Amino acid sequence: MRHKTRQVMVGDVPIGAGAPITVQSMTNTDTRDSAATSAQVEALASAGCDIVRVAVPDQEAATALSAIVAHSPVPIVADIHFDHRLALEALQAGVHKLRLNPGNIGSEAKVLEVVRAAQERSVPIRIGVNSGSVSKPLLERYGRTATAMVESALEHIAIFERLNFYDIVVSLKATDVAMTVEAYEELSRRASYPTHLGITEAGTKWFGTVKSAAGLGALLSRGLGDTLRVSLTADPVEEVKVGWAILSALELRRRGPVFISCPTCGRTEIDLEGIAGEVEKRLSDFPLPITIAIMGCIVNGPGEARHADLGITGGKGLGLVFRHGQILRKVPEGELVDALVEEANNLLAER
Amino acid sequence: MRHKTRQVMVGDVPIGAGAPITVQSMTNTDTRDSAATSAQVEALASAGCDIVRVAVPDQEAATALSAIVAHSPVPIVADIHFDHRLALEALQAGVHKLRLNPGNIGSEAKVLEVVRAAQERSVPIRIGVNSGSVSKPLLERYGRTATAMVESALEHIAIFERLNFYDIVVSLKATDVAMTVEAYEELSRRASYPTHLGITEAGTKWFGTVKSAAGLGALLSRGLGDTLRVSLTADPVEEVKVGWAILSALELRRRGPVFISCPTCGRTEIDLEGIAGEVEKRLSDFPLPITIAIMGCIVNGPGEARHADLGITGGKGLGLVFRHGQILRKVPEGELVDALVEEANNLLAER
Repeated sequence: MRHKTRQVMVGDVPIGAGAPITVQSMTNTDTRDSAATSAQVEALASAGCDIVRVAVPDQEAATALSAIVAHSPVPIVADIHFDHRLALEALQAGVHKLRLNPGNIGSEAKVLEVVRAAQERSVPIRIGVNSGSVSKPLLERYGRTATAMVESALEHIAIFERLNFYDIVVSLKATDVAMTVEAYEELSRRASYPTHLGITEAGTKWFGTVKSAAGLGALLSRGLGDTLRVSLTADPVEEVKVGWAILSALELRRRGPVFISCPTCGRTEIDLEGIAGEVEKRLSDFPLPITIAIMGCIVNGPGEARHADLGITGGKGLGLVFRHGQILRKVPEGELVDALVEEANNLLAER
Repeated sequence: MRHKTRQVMVGDVPIGAGAPITVQSMTNTDTRDSAATSAQVEALASAGCDIVRVAVPDQEAATALSAIVAHSPVPIVADIHFDHRLALEALQAGVHKLRLNPGNIGSEAKVLEVVRAAQERSVPIRIGVNSGSVSKPLLERYGRTATAMVESALEHIAIFERLNFYDIVVSLKATDVAMTVEAYEELSRRASYPTHLGITEAGTKWFGTVKSAAGLGALLSRGLGDTLRVSLTADPVEEVKVGWAILSALELRRRGPVFISCPTCGRTEIDLEGIAGEVEKRLSDFPLPITIAIMGCIVNGPGEARHADLGITGGKGLGLVFRHGQILRKVPEGELVDALVEEANNLLAER
């Protein structure tokens, strides 16, 4: 059961209150280069990114936002630190969400200016707390704990609430997974704003994928989280793919096919790893959310994978293509992947 | 907090009662080919596999076990289905654990024979329940639920307990993560035997890695699990690497270095992804459990990564190597990775 939260709208994309969990990423181009940034936004959107964030470190980057927003097929979030004028400019440029901590931009008058401009445009704001940026007084009172992070979020929230601003999303990022889980759990008991999940400093592409999946798996399986971003030291398109794979693995949301396959064992008589890799490559952009099984054992394969929409299995020289456990075709092993792709396209034509 | 369980010994490797969570894998060679199987056991052990399972489908495979056990640097588990004579032979061959469901091998007399032989050798037995193999009466009574799986495990457990056999490990594998979590949680309330975690049909190498990490992250973060196996359609050595990465990511157990790095952003002036990949490759077998940071920002990098044992960061042409946030060396960017490897080796020499 997912935690009940309020809902905010990021452009036409809802976050919270049971809306589909959205996948986000962030451009790593120079935002001032609006052409390069737009191209990356486009690539991210094609990979299934629901919302794209861009860094707005200076005036020139803020100026580039209008063009980026105009060309984007998905809502754009402006990432702002400290300077409320950049937030105002981003809002004027038409961004659909801000990422900004109100406690860090100075006087309440400045916050009020940003809040009024956001309200006029129905733009929500994400408060992003991370364990490294908790204030000294909170650290002294609560130590480096999940509670210190939650208290920090509640301080920022209180500033917004005093100004009658409630279109808030909250993220809490600790360096370790256990504290991150604790923090989101505590927040879910103390506030009802939707939450943005992420594991900070997840790391290199492979280890970061494993760490993000393990951490987000821990959070999402507890019903926590309304939107997520996987952070990797890699092409941000990879972040989107991993985000979707995590949601698919937990059966929270699907995009395209899911591939299941048995671990190879002593009974396997075909190059299962090679075939599975080829199938994954050729059908990864297939648009239907079907389950495709790649099984190593011709005797049990079709039966064991009868819940799969489509599947293949091979023995010595001979391959089978099956659909919900029923054998469709027998083909020479070398034509197995082609035959599967053909049947997938038949399925697509039928629907 | 990890759930309290009993402890069993698999050879000299403990499972349960707070012992380090062990990483397992399974050979995919033909067990009858003892030379090929021994070579794979060796490769798995080198990668950090604590316990290796081998399939024992027939008499010839059982006969090969003596040689496999004799050459193995780690305990061996025999995977037995239905035939109690294969279990008896495996025990005679010196295996350190069995995987066998007592309800599936016929009369209680046969089970008693296996149990007595296991007790004589202090060999524990894993009961492996999966959602597809739950008996009809249980399915009729409980439906396809977590409770049906737990009841199935408890039936097998009851057979062993009637024979005063308690050296039991239990696994519960459902096809979906949510039901798997529910099943292990229910079991932890109803029995105190140590548990073996795994996500069944995890799938192709990349998706299977994400699904296993998400599922095991959900379980391990709840304090569930005493030993685990990641199942992938890939070289089983890869299963071991992913298993260790999951334990590292959750800070439950460490082997070798952990790499952290920031996602690239508009401020990054070096090829962070390329450098991170090279570092991960060159230091993945480094024996100390240190944290290595690869940061993209020369201004904030060393400070942000001051909790890392070693780190590098680069700007335009210039690179820094740092240790706990203190700069050790400035080097041309092209020599950054070499310098890091050198400092890692210095650290090794010191310890």
